[in-house]
Amino acid sequence: MHMDLVAALDIGGTKIAGALVDDRGRILARAQQPTPAQEDGETVMGAVDAVLAELTVSELWPRTRAVGIGSAGPVDRSAGTVSPVNVPGWRDFPLVSRVREIAGGLPVELVGDGVAMTAAEHWQGAARGHDNALCMVVSTGVGGGLILGGQLHPGPTGNAGHIGHISVDLDGDPCPCGARGCVERIASGPNIARRALADGWRPGADGDASAAAVARAAHAGDPVAVASFERAAQALAAGIAATATLVEIDIAVIGGGVAKSGDVLFVPLRRALRDYATLSFVQRLTVAPASTGTDAGLVGAAAAALRSDSARGEVQRQAV
Amino acid sequence: MHMDLVAALDIGGTKIAGALVDDRGRILARAQQPTPAQEDGETVMGAVDAVLAELTVSELWPRTRAVGIGSAGPVDRSAGTVSPVNVPGWRDFPLVSRVREIAGGLPVELVGDGVAMTAAEHWQGAARGHDNALCMVVSTGVGGGLILGGQLHPGPTGNAGHIGHISVDLDGDPCPCGARGCVERIASGPNIARRALADGWRPGADGDASAAAVARAAHAGDPVAVASFERAAQALAAGIAATATLVEIDIAVIGGGVAKSGDVLFVPLRRALRDYATLSFVQRLTVAPASTGTDAGLVGAAAAALRSDSARGEVQRQAV
Repeated sequence: MHMDLVAALDIGGTKIAGALVDDRGRILARAQQPTPAQEDGETVMGAVDAVLAELTVSELWPRTRAVGIGSAGPVDRSAGTVSPVNVPGWRDFPLVSRVREIAGGLPVELVGDGVAMTAAEHWQGAARGHDNALCMVVSTGVGGGLILGGQLHPGPTGNAGHIGHISVDLDGDPCPCGARGCVERIASGPNIARRALADGWRPGADGDASAAAVARAAHAGDPVAVASFERAAQALAAGIAATATLVEIDIAVIGGGVAKSGDVLFVPLRRALRDYATLSFVQRLTVAPASTGTDAGLVGAAAAALRSDSARGEVQRQAV
Repeated sequence: MHMDLVAALDIGGTKIAGALVDDRGRILARAQQPTPAQEDGETVMGAVDAVLAELTVSELWPRTRAVGIGSAGPVDRSAGTVSPVNVPGWRDFPLVSRVREIAGGLPVELVGDGVAMTAAEHWQGAARGHDNALCMVVSTGVGGGLILGGQLHPGPTGNAGHIGHISVDLDGDPCPCGARGCVERIASGPNIARRALADGWRPGADGDASAAAVARAAHAGDPVAVASFERAAQALAAGIAATATLVEIDIAVIGGGVAKSGDVLFVPLRRALRDYATLSFVQRLTVAPASTGTDAGLVGAAAAALRSDSARGEVQRQAV
């Protein structure tokens, strides 16, 4: 009988979601608060407290053995701190110790949100059954995570798989991160829209100038819109091929708003991948859309807690 | 008492070296043959036979428990085959089964030469004590390997860490691999020399137009030679930063002929690394020259054999 549960926290710039999750990934209880992202650090922590308070009063809480946190990055898993770009009140904020205190000393596992999404896709989504995978979120930004040798590879600080900020165009446009030609600088939703507008695409009567609107124009055959998605696909292909060449993945799973564009992204992406993934050991690399939904962050945070050695030890010890 | 030995084979386009190596990495017996690289596959295998024959008649051979092979790539560790670019007679050649047969059924571990060099640097060189490292060889080509979480990460086929063929310039010059703007296409010795010549540098009275000659000119202040090394350094920095951002390494170790250029490479490389390794979790990344010498291939092949689970199991079983 596996009746143990884990608590999961999905911390983003817009909302803080929490859940109690069983070892098959089913969500048995939920709580949510908006993120007071522009407030001071203690006010943001107050929202986390409120989410956890709802969970700890659940009749299921006594069965909870560990807490998994997936947070907007950067995070520092080894230090137990987070510094989310969009939450300025949290810089090196000791989230792990604060959560552990509220959770009565349970083990706490912290990973970046790209790593959490990857854990979810490997557990229940398109990366299931793949021992070596890259999972990505392509939306306002570009994030990701890695499965290597059948295991989540968060890296020492929990940020591994950060494909959005590898440079595929070393002389390219400056990226807000400080480098040039990063995958995100070319392939994120805002950059797809920016490039289409700069090249002469104009929004329709509704004034929608988002990447989703560019995707609709591309589906309708607008050549500038098509070209902007092709350029994004080329950058994604170069980044995915680089990852495969470095660590031997056999699938890249892509989620996030831009991935919902469908063929206008995936057709040129698969074509460009043949141009960049050339060595024999990466030629069988495939690309698939993500299949976990809006709960991916929670499910992934739960998966990270279930997989972590410390949590597993605790679950086993307490289960005896 | 650990008295067991492993046999190591270092297979390149020029020579095939073999050794018996103890568990502290000391070479106790050696053999070597030139590689008949342009001959048919069986003739090349004959040279391997000759090297192994010298080792198997050694009085130390009965203590040998496993064989490690580091080979010019691509290799396929899962299939046990090799297809070295510079040895056309070997395509999907079943090297592992052939060596196992000669070695009386001992377990055989196969990795690419970049992975072998990495194992050597982690065991005895500049990557010692680092749990997450990229080791590279920058010479005629650019190869590499990874240490992740304290362990060699060969990848399923034994080719992981192949940094020479990640694209850092997606619109760049075509690379012989089929992609564009690969690190090797910009940073290898022949490409450093080619670019210097194209930009107006001329060899001295000795007619030496190698990267080593360009390095000497750069040390003497020749601006075209300096610029060619700076461009190579920029490409290496972009590739190293990409690797760190993807898998969280904290050191990049660089060996090979081009690394012997010293400051004309390492000073601009360290500068460029600050431009490309921008995220908080990669800012402490350092770069160091390799410290293992000409035996790195043999020592690394031995390390791969000692580390492999199958070999370890065999050693333990036979040691009982």
